[in-house]
Amino acid sequence: MKATIHITLKNGVLDPQGKAIENALGSLGFGGVDDVRQGKLIEVSLDESDADKARATLTDMCEKLLANTVIENYDIHLSEA
Amino acid sequence: MKATIHITLKNGVLDPQGKAIENALGSLGFGGVDDVRQGKLIEVSLDESDADKARATLTDMCEKLLANTVIENYDIHLSEA
Repeated sequence: MKATIHITLKNGVLDPQGKAIENALGSLGFGGVDDVRQGKLIEVSLDESDADKARATLTDMCEKLLANTVIENYDIHLSEA
Repeated sequence: MKATIHITLKNGVLDPQGKAIENALGSLGFGGVDDVRQGKLIEVSLDESDADKARATLTDMCEKLLANTVIENYDIHLSEA
């Protein structure tokens, strides 16, 4: 089973990288761009066919390693095969 | 209109960061984890209500700034509001 984990900064946490992208887009002439935030995307292949078990394992991984839950949210998306 | 852009390394491009995560998960006792890849997630608020126009602008942004198209793929997901 494959999974994609979206890790994003919580609202209110300063995101200088996103701000830099926003400014760079402005300099390139892209108008009307607001509130750019950069996060992480982690793709994992898991040797587990049960969706509930896979989700539980992935949640555990996020809590223990992948996300800093003080400042980051995570969101798990499972896909078959 | 809000958009989420997924930027991932192309297949065959070495991903040392993903490999490091894979090894760290192994050390923490998570078995059966295969092929971890790390990418980027960029959230943008666009001042544009037409989905086709928004997609065209975002594609342009990816080509010009957000993704390195030599080694990275990008994938645009639009969401309302």
